[in-house]
Amino acid sequence: MLPTSVQEYLKSHRQEHLEKLFELLRIESIANRDDDGCDRAAQWLARHLSAIGLDARVAATAGKPCVLAEGHAGDDKPTVLIYGHYDVQPPEPLESWESPPFEPTVRDGAIYARGANDDKGQLFTHLMALEAFVKAGGGLPVNVKLLLEGEEEIGSPTLEPFLEAHKDQLSADAAVISDSAFFAEGVPSITYALRGLAYVELIVRGPTRDLHSGLYGGAVANPANALARMVGLMHDDAGRVTIPGFYDDVRPLGDDERLAWDELPFDEVALAHEAGVKTLAGGELGLPVLERMWARPTLDCNGIVGGYTEKGSKTIIPAEATAKISMRLVPDQRPEKIVEGFAQFVAEHVPPGLSVEVVVNAEASPVLLASDSPAMAAARDAYAEAFGCQPTLIRCGASVPVTEQIQRLLGIDAVMMGFGLPSDQLHSPNERFALAQLYQGAVASAAFLHNLASG
Amino acid sequence: MLPTSVQEYLKSHRQEHLEKLFELLRIESIANRDDDGCDRAAQWLARHLSAIGLDARVAATAGKPCVLAEGHAGDDKPTVLIYGHYDVQPPEPLESWESPPFEPTVRDGAIYARGANDDKGQLFTHLMALEAFVKAGGGLPVNVKLLLEGEEEIGSPTLEPFLEAHKDQLSADAAVISDSAFFAEGVPSITYALRGLAYVELIVRGPTRDLHSGLYGGAVANPANALARMVGLMHDDAGRVTIPGFYDDVRPLGDDERLAWDELPFDEVALAHEAGVKTLAGGELGLPVLERMWARPTLDCNGIVGGYTEKGSKTIIPAEATAKISMRLVPDQRPEKIVEGFAQFVAEHVPPGLSVEVVVNAEASPVLLASDSPAMAAARDAYAEAFGCQPTLIRCGASVPVTEQIQRLLGIDAVMMGFGLPSDQLHSPNERFALAQLYQGAVASAAFLHNLASG
Repeated sequence: MLPTSVQEYLKSHRQEHLEKLFELLRIESIANRDDDGCDRAAQWLARHLSAIGLDARVAATAGKPCVLAEGHAGDDKPTVLIYGHYDVQPPEPLESWESPPFEPTVRDGAIYARGANDDKGQLFTHLMALEAFVKAGGGLPVNVKLLLEGEEEIGSPTLEPFLEAHKDQLSADAAVISDSAFFAEGVPSITYALRGLAYVELIVRGPTRDLHSGLYGGAVANPANALARMVGLMHDDAGRVTIPGFYDDVRPLGDDERLAWDELPFDEVALAHEAGVKTLAGGELGLPVLERMWARPTLDCNGIVGGYTEKGSKTIIPAEATAKISMRLVPDQRPEKIVEGFAQFVAEHVPPGLSVEVVVNAEASPVLLASDSPAMAAARDAYAEAFGCQPTLIRCGASVPVTEQIQRLLGIDAVMMGFGLPSDQLHSPNERFALAQLYQGAVASAAFLHNLASG
Repeated sequence: MLPTSVQEYLKSHRQEHLEKLFELLRIESIANRDDDGCDRAAQWLARHLSAIGLDARVAATAGKPCVLAEGHAGDDKPTVLIYGHYDVQPPEPLESWESPPFEPTVRDGAIYARGANDDKGQLFTHLMALEAFVKAGGGLPVNVKLLLEGEEEIGSPTLEPFLEAHKDQLSADAAVISDSAFFAEGVPSITYALRGLAYVELIVRGPTRDLHSGLYGGAVANPANALARMVGLMHDDAGRVTIPGFYDDVRPLGDDERLAWDELPFDEVALAHEAGVKTLAGGELGLPVLERMWARPTLDCNGIVGGYTEKGSKTIIPAEATAKISMRLVPDQRPEKIVEGFAQFVAEHVPPGLSVEVVVNAEASPVLLASDSPAMAAARDAYAEAFGCQPTLIRCGASVPVTEQIQRLLGIDAVMMGFGLPSDQLHSPNERFALAQLYQGAVASAAFLHNLASG
């Protein structure tokens, strides 16, 4: 059981913690912007970590900086690595926010802000727990190392070399990542698998300038037509991806997992409602929805643009058109092989008169994590203490590239203690994080650290 | 032969005429903008027409105003209707202009500005000719009526009811439209056929907000994927449009026209160079290029947009995606039937979980004009006088909706005396109009009016 002093500290400092978290949420730390938002968030975190008694610093990477911190409990104690990311998704479309994305506010028992959940709110649960131990619990129960990243939302492009270079410094006995969610409200969950990601841009180029579609239509090949055709050809009528070899390395879902998922309190109608659609008609039609989201790869056009996109009409053959395409990958697909297949498919479908370029924006491998480690046992018991029941083990369709990198480079299967709720509108306007999840998340984090020490 | 006084006047007033045209070119009269640019251009034209001795006024329409003007020569004289349009294409992309689009400048013997050719420059040739007759030629040789429109570049959506309402007022014996081009530099041409237009927007809607493509990818249908697929399916591998019935009403090209076109000094390599492409690979591959541009219908995506289109990555399933699509039509296709087929095709290809809307932006019928009228004879001789040779008769792939409307509503087959050159970059950055074409165009216009009077 978590010491009462720590529990009491967390309970009595809710207001102070909220105010601190709000300071962090006000910083517009968006990784694909050229401004200093990420630097300011990193500096804020390093200052805050120092203030709560850790040895913290901002460490340069090839991209946005990482924040590193350490706290010592004793050489006989295990060491746990805590990962989080302080960068957030771009807030657009701004007009859809009920309150401004970088002015956090509390409504209906939840914090509304970009990053309220993903991942500033979730990483903050650990900072609250660490503070409680240092200030009221007689010190840290375990040695801790923190790695707070600033490029997760763009696929962590520079994290891997950083991890390689700081391998020894980041070595640990266990790792925890809080960047996932409960399966449903009231169903506390730990995630044991994530999809990977291959994010590419497909640029089709034609004439050197936009051309009059009347004068040249029929003579000059149209890059927007061709882009649409190529992207369209990437799926068949049944929603299957048609790129040759795309499914070659997909590990079939085991019967044990399929049976376990059948037991989950999954409500298709509720998910459709929460997603704002009438029916769940994405992916490979015919397969169960959970399998499509968790265990099957997908190909989504995240953005497409070319030619005249303002109000009204302009009759042109555009000079070029671009699509941003993300492919979510599952074990044992490898992003570099998938990108290769994509590029080859595109090359084979370039119509005459046009040229094509494929730019790789991000690659992340899918990951499956051990569910029988001592850290997992500590996490299960921590959930029981904080949320009143053992966690449900689930997969997640999203990607957290660091998870696989920690596994591969540091040899640790992280425990994904996710405190979000499915209704938290991640990556969408009006992102939120329920106050109860923040507060009980901090309790769960503290109990996890406590259990690890005694386990 | 054109009276020497008129010829001399045109020659000695080139600088004044250029300055006046520049005033008109400086006005940003873009029909799909909500500002007063079109009103100011219309007022400028009415003032200018009054100043050169015509009875002119700005007439309201359901959209941007028309300028109407009349000049009387005598009840025994024929009456000619002169059409032009003062609205211009949007200037974007601005960064591609060598000099600002609304600051006309002369370089290498040509005027560079948005509208320099299309159609402010070309309509100005007639104003120069009329002025020369009034000021130096002893008055107008024929009765003239002018109709200067402000919505041609958006498909003349409100012109037809305006023509209906002003049918009597606009009645004439002949009509002239200068909104086309020479077949090539040194090959003076008159256009006897234009393609029609059906311009639609296709909007695909999915979730009520952008969704996280990891969490929902595989569950929720993606509007951008679906839009690409639908647009892609509109062509087959050979470049043929696949919408059922699309080609049903296409009048086959006659042997006489095919033979005549074989005689034209057509240079595929030069056209490709001018269009900024390596090969002319648009439209129905296998057919001759001129046939594809002039006598075959096409379907071009003029613009496409959906989801995240800024720099870098954002992993979302967009809430919606839109394509602007123009179909160029040939005799005897009817735009309303084509739009119907388009809407039906789309309805049959909506994937589950998504909804679709088709908005019609513009419709214009294709037109074939008589080439044996007295007005055509007057025009041929005028070309011989101004440009030193008889004109070549050509078709044009673009649409000038008024041409068919004048034919259908006023019963006049207009003569399309076009003074542009193929290298004039219509609808593109760095649009231009050669000074020689402007000056000799005015001579041709004057000779045409003179010939009509004596013909």
